Amino acid sequence: MGQDKRQLRLGAFLMTPGHHVAAWRYPDTVASEVLNFSFYKQLALTAERGKFDMLFLADGYAISEKFPEAVAQTVTIRHEPLTLLSALSSVTEHVGLAATVSTTFNEPFHVARKFATLDHLSGGRAAWNVVTSANPAEALNFNKDELLLHSLRYDRAEEFLNVVTGLWDSWEDDAFVFDKTGAVFADRSKLHTLDHHGRWFSVRGPLNVARPVQGHPVVIQAGASEPGKELAARTAEVIFTAWQTLEEAQIFYKDVKGRLAKYGRTSDELKIMPGVFPIIGRTEAEADEKKALLEELIPREAGISLLSNLISFDLSPYPEDGPLPELPEQEEINGGKSRFKLLKDLAERENLSIRQLYQRIAGARGHREIKGTPVQIADQLQEWFEQEAADGFNIMPPYMPGGLEDFVDLVVPELQRRGLFRTEYTGRTLRENLGLSRPAHPAQRNAAKQRQPVSG
Amino acid sequence: MGQDKRQLRLGAFLMTPGHHVAAWRYPDTVASEVLNFSFYKQLALTAERGKFDMLFLADGYAISEKFPEAVAQTVTIRHEPLTLLSALSSVTEHVGLAATVSTTFNEPFHVARKFATLDHLSGGRAAWNVVTSANPAEALNFNKDELLLHSLRYDRAEEFLNVVTGLWDSWEDDAFVFDKTGAVFADRSKLHTLDHHGRWFSVRGPLNVARPVQGHPVVIQAGASEPGKELAARTAEVIFTAWQTLEEAQIFYKDVKGRLAKYGRTSDELKIMPGVFPIIGRTEAEADEKKALLEELIPREAGISLLSNLISFDLSPYPEDGPLPELPEQEEINGGKSRFKLLKDLAERENLSIRQLYQRIAGARGHREIKGTPVQIADQLQEWFEQEAADGFNIMPPYMPGGLEDFVDLVVPELQRRGLFRTEYTGRTLRENLGLSRPAHPAQRNAAKQRQPVSG
Repeated sequence: MGQDKRQLRLGAFLMTPGHHVAAWRYPDTVASEVLNFSFYKQLALTAERGKFDMLFLADGYAISEKFPEAVAQTVTIRHEPLTLLSALSSVTEHVGLAATVSTTFNEPFHVARKFATLDHLSGGRAAWNVVTSANPAEALNFNKDELLLHSLRYDRAEEFLNVVTGLWDSWEDDAFVFDKTGAVFADRSKLHTLDHHGRWFSVRGPLNVARPVQGHPVVIQAGASEPGKELAARTAEVIFTAWQTLEEAQIFYKDVKGRLAKYGRTSDELKIMPGVFPIIGRTEAEADEKKALLEELIPREAGISLLSNLISFDLSPYPEDGPLPELPEQEEINGGKSRFKLLKDLAERENLSIRQLYQRIAGARGHREIKGTPVQIADQLQEWFEQEAADGFNIMPPYMPGGLEDFVDLVVPELQRRGLFRTEYTGRTLRENLGLSRPAHPAQRNAAKQRQPVSG
Repeated sequence: MGQDKRQLRLGAFLMTPGHHVAAWRYPDTVASEVLNFSFYKQLALTAERGKFDMLFLADGYAISEKFPEAVAQTVTIRHEPLTLLSALSSVTEHVGLAATVSTTFNEPFHVARKFATLDHLSGGRAAWNVVTSANPAEALNFNKDELLLHSLRYDRAEEFLNVVTGLWDSWEDDAFVFDKTGAVFADRSKLHTLDHHGRWFSVRGPLNVARPVQGHPVVIQAGASEPGKELAARTAEVIFTAWQTLEEAQIFYKDVKGRLAKYGRTSDELKIMPGVFPIIGRTEAEADEKKALLEELIPREAGISLLSNLISFDLSPYPEDGPLPELPEQEEINGGKSRFKLLKDLAERENLSIRQLYQRIAGARGHREIKGTPVQIADQLQEWFEQEAADGFNIMPPYMPGGLEDFVDLVVPELQRRGLFRTEYTGRTLRENLGLSRPAHPAQRNAAKQRQPVSG
């Protein structure tokens, strides 16, 4: 988008007090800050100082009590992300605001409206991370006995997303005329009633919010399963994904980008941003020490429950220093399928014990862990970026605020020196900063089609 | 609460660009500001300068297209209130943040979590206006063909509220111990799983947010029907209500306050705050001119549709200068019952034509309209306050920001001179400013009971 050289995109994945499961025990963190707004404000301003494209917040709708001891050892509470990002919207100016909201236990009308509102309030900085809910404990908080099957979750997600984008297009961009003399607030011919009747939802519309500043808030997805990839190729603008090795990341990148053409989309309309968990030291030794300390601080039950939840299989009966037990086939589990496979493969490839595996994933939770000096960190990001494994990264600092500050103060300047990252925000909206075009309203698209001669 | 003299409470009911249906045509307003955050920020800071207890936002989940012409003449769009109030939470310090969220088309887990989050982010300033949805167009946006019956809506509302308050109590106040050395983040004995199974909801819990700063965000209700009054007497801390005359307000005040004892509550645990629509002039003539101008600016279709919606009866076929037609009995309608009766009685009492009635309610929509100089406005508020008709008022400025600024700059100082209103915020939380006590956690209440000798 007007830049000579392709530049990478960065998300600041805020998990407090850090992504590592032992972050709250790390000497630099203040665990009680997970409740305080001033802490989140500090993190947001740090990310904005680092010219990050966006803040990214995950979410979940339950505290799993399957591993009761782990509840005492884990940060089980977190602020509802849309509420938090709305509060942050008014104390930041440039950084995008990406909230995870599940399609499994929500209503599209509410979701469309909240993101449209946030997009207006923030001047076009909202993004929606569209997920399905894979945690059985969540179903119990929403009048259900069990989760939807994986394939049904994706079917619902796709329809949900269609309804939401349809509602965002309820009003054309210039529908509001504010004509006091003529007594016309809105041009009614530019109001479109969705009238959706589908398998999962009946939603008449129209939405009672004007079309978002960005047309549509940016759509992010995370699924790496077959239906997840197909949905992303059709509808996603950013993919947040988890890969351990360059090779598997390249395969995924090529696979998903290759699916775009059949939906009439080009490669740069979808940014692939794997998660990266960086352990940064001023020296290699310092980075190694940080990692060792974090591993040492993992409470045992917290480690086993984290791993069990990630692979949707209870490991607590098995010896910690032994190997993974015989696991079910990927087809048989109803949790997140791609993460299951990734961890099973990792343990087999490196012959890891249960303890070694949970230590290994206690920070990045399956995402790529990189470690070293700022130059080494930059090297590792650059490699994936230049070798068609990533268009950018979602940065997952081990502990906060220190881990984020180190990235901003040490790694970002190195990326900037290499010409790989912006030195100033150039766009007004998140969409512009990411290099994504603004979706035209369907009425405009149709009008444009009618003006063009029919080809083919 | 430590004050010698009883003082009144004030809400700033933000409807933009004003409460009057013609506000957007009023010379002082900028209609396009309904989309801009800076406008809302200005209003919030004005209310805080005026030491208001809280900002209050109504809500609705549909644009009714029953009266298509009115859609072009009316402000049909509004920001989702929780999103907007969250954004305002970080640019204000003292003022409470009250959002309307319906129990008819939401899930208690989400609602509990969002209000708990807002309460944490704002340092204890959140309030929830608990309503049921009475607009048939809303059902169509949530997979339903028609509204729930009035009595079922209240049944659902009561259970909804029970679940939400139960979820707020998931964690005791001191559940989080943040003990790094002992590897204890939370004291699991202070975690309570709700395990609710009712007629409307099955919600296991616990909530994944700490107990709110206020214990529970302040609970506001508006229903004035029989089930509404009973629910309020049992559970509400503020009632926002609509009355035209001192007498009916006094009857309601006495009625609801009289119901408190059977639930073990005292009179000051529930603040009754009728809506008031003030037309303020520096002189009486100026106030009269403002009112005349607002009436003149009402677009015809907007006026008729507003009235039709308020009484749940289509008046568009009837002559504008004739009387109200024969209306159904109150029992037969499924919309808001108390507003229906209020408007029907008003038209009969004063022998109003349809046009006169819509002009009459085009600002206050059934709430009390007061008009005059700042001294006259203060007199009218003082009368209701001192004669047991109100504990405070929800102020509904006709147009924004001017109508709110006039109230803050002209009426508030007059109320302060009379000793009727605070000159500084004295509480840290909304609850403290309103003079409401913080609800103890049930585990503490039970412990206290066990320590006391059994009486009776």
